[in-house]
Amino acid sequence: MFENIKAAKRQLKGHANITPVMTSRTLNHKTGAEIFFKCENFQRVGAFKFRGAYNAMSRLSDDQKARGIITHSSGNHAQAVALVGRLLKIKTTIVMPSNAPEIKRNATKGYGADIIEYDPEKTTREEISENLKSEKGYTLIPPYDHKDVVSGQGTTALELFEELNTLDMLLVPCGGGGLLSGCAIASKNMDPDCRVIGIEPELADDATKSFHTKKLHTVKNPPTIADGTRTPSLGKITFPLVLKYVDDMKTVTEKSIMEAVRYLFYRMKLVVEPSGALGLAAVLSRAVEPGGRIGIVLSGGNIDADVLANILADE
Amino acid sequence: MFENIKAAKRQLKGHANITPVMTSRTLNHKTGAEIFFKCENFQRVGAFKFRGAYNAMSRLSDDQKARGIITHSSGNHAQAVALVGRLLKIKTTIVMPSNAPEIKRNATKGYGADIIEYDPEKTTREEISENLKSEKGYTLIPPYDHKDVVSGQGTTALELFEELNTLDMLLVPCGGGGLLSGCAIASKNMDPDCRVIGIEPELADDATKSFHTKKLHTVKNPPTIADGTRTPSLGKITFPLVLKYVDDMKTVTEKSIMEAVRYLFYRMKLVVEPSGALGLAAVLSRAVEPGGRIGIVLSGGNIDADVLANILADE
Repeated sequence: MFENIKAAKRQLKGHANITPVMTSRTLNHKTGAEIFFKCENFQRVGAFKFRGAYNAMSRLSDDQKARGIITHSSGNHAQAVALVGRLLKIKTTIVMPSNAPEIKRNATKGYGADIIEYDPEKTTREEISENLKSEKGYTLIPPYDHKDVVSGQGTTALELFEELNTLDMLLVPCGGGGLLSGCAIASKNMDPDCRVIGIEPELADDATKSFHTKKLHTVKNPPTIADGTRTPSLGKITFPLVLKYVDDMKTVTEKSIMEAVRYLFYRMKLVVEPSGALGLAAVLSRAVEPGGRIGIVLSGGNIDADVLANILADE
Repeated sequence: MFENIKAAKRQLKGHANITPVMTSRTLNHKTGAEIFFKCENFQRVGAFKFRGAYNAMSRLSDDQKARGIITHSSGNHAQAVALVGRLLKIKTTIVMPSNAPEIKRNATKGYGADIIEYDPEKTTREEISENLKSEKGYTLIPPYDHKDVVSGQGTTALELFEELNTLDMLLVPCGGGGLLSGCAIASKNMDPDCRVIGIEPELADDATKSFHTKKLHTVKNPPTIADGTRTPSLGKITFPLVLKYVDDMKTVTEKSIMEAVRYLFYRMKLVVEPSGALGLAAVLSRAVEPGGRIGIVLSGGNIDADVLANILADE
């Protein structure tokens, strides 16, 4: 798999941003650790999802590209697929619930994707996608459970180790496990001694339970503010990878997620969405014990104005 | 003066951050220009003010350091002086109006400064400062009208040209003219062909008027959202420097300042205060015609939560 991540890096060259690594003297002083933030909020479409979408879509056959692709997501993956479709001139269709936030629907439409809305009370997104796949010949690019998507996301950690050489610990947010498993594979190959820890909201702790019991747990619409982690479970591909390459999983409270978003906003001047702030939440709440050189993946920065206003007002 | 800026750079080494330069493909595409943002929102205390304060205070004599320093400011300069005081073990006293925002008073206090409050209805900050200067032997470090402060701020542009070599245009926010004049001096020495343009809010256009008429104009408490530019006028030192080294001055509306803050927030995931967004406001509103390689100084990121919430809700 590591070869696939190195190949993904070559594939992304000149298309994805090599995102900066930021530090904070104040935070290092406060924690006694040396913390390095990999800023995927500065990635194209504002999240790491561009990496996986570009890697997967650019590898399709000419025939697949000509027929077009489909995905189901109301979040960052939808925007990534839509933008990559525009860049590579591939027709994209995004299946979204009719109650998806206006701002996300508009952003996705703005990149030129077709939006198919469905009523989540009456049908499932999988059913709609499957029907369109067979009817129109679209190829499905799922948000995480796909080898090329995982490899693309893994380039995040590959870049980080290329810049920093070694780390004692790497903290990665976990939703469906695409980013986490890709980063864990890159990490174990670049620096086998670095402990890779996946971070989930306490309210959406399916992957943490799955990791500790080695049996797949699921959650349904968990009420966490970290909307990127509301996925029902790890996937067929990501679950075994997480079991094999990840050292531990930890959870954080909603309160600590909001504290981390505030810290990044006020002290570091970074716009980071709640899911993106999980790693810092783990450090600030001592879900992991800080020390040594810690890498933290800030996975994205797509936060709605009212969500941020509520978080900033919560203090 | 350029020698002083190069000396300031040596003085700041290891103390100030070498702030990153950020770009946006979307913005370049939209404007047809190549735009480089010098991110002083990532400077220590969240604004360029750390540069001038550190340069000026670290050059004081041992005797001056032992007696302590005083300044009057309720903004970023106050926080910068307070932090530098803590770093260099110099006692600092900040004269602030009793109606200064709680958040700024607390941040300044947090760095260990003594706060002296005054009632702006009954007395002036200059009067209070003068009394304390003669009574206690404090040295005054003003927010902009001071040679070492100007030289410190000039390192912002020096770093930018060291990284980018040439620019066609450099856009710098203008309050009291410390940042603008320092950056203009550095710019004219590093790349004489680069046009340096100072940007002010239309509602606080004293420096623009002063520049065009060559006579000092003043404003009193202008109601602009860009609080860093509410200074009454250019200074005795900065006015002649602005006349000599700056190529032009332009103004922008409150609406365009808010649009720029929103753009930086949503599209670039950067927290930038209204004064810091003046350069981008000039480009987005076509107060300057974009083209070629444009440097924009994002001067700071200290924005209150409620101000940002209002700006984001204004769209």
